[in-house]
Amino acid sequence: MRINSNYNKMKDSYLFLNIAKKTKAFMEANPDAPVIKMGIGDVTLPLPAACVNAMKKACDEMGLKETFKGYGDYEGYAFLREAIADYYKQFGVTVGADEVFVSDGAKSDIGNILDIFDSDNIVMVPDPVYPVYVDTNIMAGRQVIFADANQSNGFLPAPDKNVKVDIIYLCSPNNPTGAVYDRAGLKTWVDYANEQGAVILFDAAYEAFISDKELPHSIFEIDGAKTCAIEFCSFSKTAGFTGTRCGYTVISKELVREGKSLLELWLRRQSTKYNGTPYIIQRGAEAVFSDEGRKQIKANIDYYKQNTAILGEVLSEKGITFFGGHNSPYIWLKCPNGMKSWEFFDFLLSECNIVGTPGSGFGNNGEGYFRLTGFGSRENTLLAASRMREKL
Amino acid sequence: MRINSNYNKMKDSYLFLNIAKKTKAFMEANPDAPVIKMGIGDVTLPLPAACVNAMKKACDEMGLKETFKGYGDYEGYAFLREAIADYYKQFGVTVGADEVFVSDGAKSDIGNILDIFDSDNIVMVPDPVYPVYVDTNIMAGRQVIFADANQSNGFLPAPDKNVKVDIIYLCSPNNPTGAVYDRAGLKTWVDYANEQGAVILFDAAYEAFISDKELPHSIFEIDGAKTCAIEFCSFSKTAGFTGTRCGYTVISKELVREGKSLLELWLRRQSTKYNGTPYIIQRGAEAVFSDEGRKQIKANIDYYKQNTAILGEVLSEKGITFFGGHNSPYIWLKCPNGMKSWEFFDFLLSECNIVGTPGSGFGNNGEGYFRLTGFGSRENTLLAASRMREKL
Repeated sequence: MRINSNYNKMKDSYLFLNIAKKTKAFMEANPDAPVIKMGIGDVTLPLPAACVNAMKKACDEMGLKETFKGYGDYEGYAFLREAIADYYKQFGVTVGADEVFVSDGAKSDIGNILDIFDSDNIVMVPDPVYPVYVDTNIMAGRQVIFADANQSNGFLPAPDKNVKVDIIYLCSPNNPTGAVYDRAGLKTWVDYANEQGAVILFDAAYEAFISDKELPHSIFEIDGAKTCAIEFCSFSKTAGFTGTRCGYTVISKELVREGKSLLELWLRRQSTKYNGTPYIIQRGAEAVFSDEGRKQIKANIDYYKQNTAILGEVLSEKGITFFGGHNSPYIWLKCPNGMKSWEFFDFLLSECNIVGTPGSGFGNNGEGYFRLTGFGSRENTLLAASRMREKL
Repeated sequence: MRINSNYNKMKDSYLFLNIAKKTKAFMEANPDAPVIKMGIGDVTLPLPAACVNAMKKACDEMGLKETFKGYGDYEGYAFLREAIADYYKQFGVTVGADEVFVSDGAKSDIGNILDIFDSDNIVMVPDPVYPVYVDTNIMAGRQVIFADANQSNGFLPAPDKNVKVDIIYLCSPNNPTGAVYDRAGLKTWVDYANEQGAVILFDAAYEAFISDKELPHSIFEIDGAKTCAIEFCSFSKTAGFTGTRCGYTVISKELVREGKSLLELWLRRQSTKYNGTPYIIQRGAEAVFSDEGRKQIKANIDYYKQNTAILGEVLSEKGITFFGGHNSPYIWLKCPNGMKSWEFFDFLLSECNIVGTPGSGFGNNGEGYFRLTGFGSRENTLLAASRMREKL
């Protein structure tokens, strides 16, 4: 038996696993250090009560013969797909419930969607970006080229018509930089993809953090996107589902390549390699869209945004350049004193007992940058801010 | 963008999707027909109370700041991995909790594990068998060869030393035939795999249905299996989790190929393309192993076994040859009057309003056979039995 040799091409270990290992080692060496973890971008507020109540009700249903649910639809229950399709209406986007696929999370879908593409396709990934885009393609043996995101383009690269690519990743609001494409910016990508016959994989996991009215939440707000884009979204950051696991993927029936509907290919992939998302969890996700749920998630998102404001304030005081924060839960800062990313990681961990995310883990252009998140508790965010105020 | 052309090589549509489509069409044409669905092998008894209570408690934890859980370990919570490792002790098998990987189900793992193998490997699949083994490999462009399972070998093929393969699928108790390997039978496969450097993917999803004391529940009961086998198991049939979604994969640290630990490769795959199983669901799965949970699942399994006995009785009365049933929830019958599998499907649906599973959907050797399941309700099973008694 031969192993997939592409695994040998992968760099070291997955970024967040590395951070976890380094943090563990530090905590074992310094058992009394009051470490604040802001490394993985995990939420800290409990689930909205609407979700908890809906899931408890669903648990009860599962315990009764009359209401028990066995295998669900591979693509998710209609009640949730319809709620998601309905959610898009506020953005002026019409998607059918049969164009929505529920899953255990955007990360899984973003990796698994690659199954339907040939391994010879050329992939374009912004640099820096969420490492999963690169790693999943390296694993599949695809050639990855990078679109430079840097201070000069506001961390929002534009397409280069001289470069031919097949699969394009966009993440807006961006992880890790917090940069958000406006309509004109997205339109250039949509036009480019349609001209080239490329497919855009659009990661909208942070769309709920957009405050500015004129910024698009969905790529389907852009004319022409339905014939070139697949959108991924998640309840992880919107509703605190990081440990509850639910996300969704939207593919228009209009997205066709080589005469094949990509929606049909994805359904085939999912029906063969996935068996649906837990009924209980889908009921919890449905409750996110209820009146009560919407109020509760808004309160949580506002809370996290205040956290980023608190962190941003200290950085401003210290004269440290940073991006993001406003329409995103992430702050992307330039490491002070010319420090490299992992150097600043070690400094922040040892001096402030704060775990953050080294920018270099997101790509070459991330070197010298660092990601902080607003997802901590208020208490820890204030504590982190005061430690940074003292030590930076 | 080019699509994965291997998808073009796949036959028609996924078996269970096909059955669902045919059934839907029949029900639309015959809205009053009292159809009994035994097609997909789905359970019907509600979840054990122990699981429901544990999940409701976990929902409450998720709603409180102090007990909220964000991202869990990619490989599952230690409490569940330890409970699973402990479960193996009754079979005389020692596995470490760090050799257990929790997931959303055996189907996902059986498909996803292929990511770590080269696409040039030759795959051996018994015929007939669970179609996912074949489809997932066709999707990845692998060559699949078949090991004939038929009446003359008791639907339990043995290895052929003259045939060189890399990846071997075994499913015992078998889906669809209900055949179960004894220790000697499994030992021949383990020895063959170790000699060839092959890897056995052992699907133990139905192990809880084994009644005969001398039959192995796990391939790790066989000497030498740790250096050649990966075992997949699921709570779907053991505890009624088909709509609740939880399974696990066991890989020994001793399983090494080309100097690489397959456990490490799998962890790398999962940490890059999966984000863990819901905390709530993992607490439900843990409860399966509690004293209360074990009693409750035993009662459910006994109930399903009585259903298969009821179905077997009718078939015996009618002089219809069948296999399985005893150590398995499935009955594998020879279609009466020389009917072909889909022919019998149509006959059974129109005459008895019973949806079963055509044997040919599981492979060429399944042609002329048909699968029935004991997973129905008692009421429906008795009704199905009486209709068959009348019409067959």
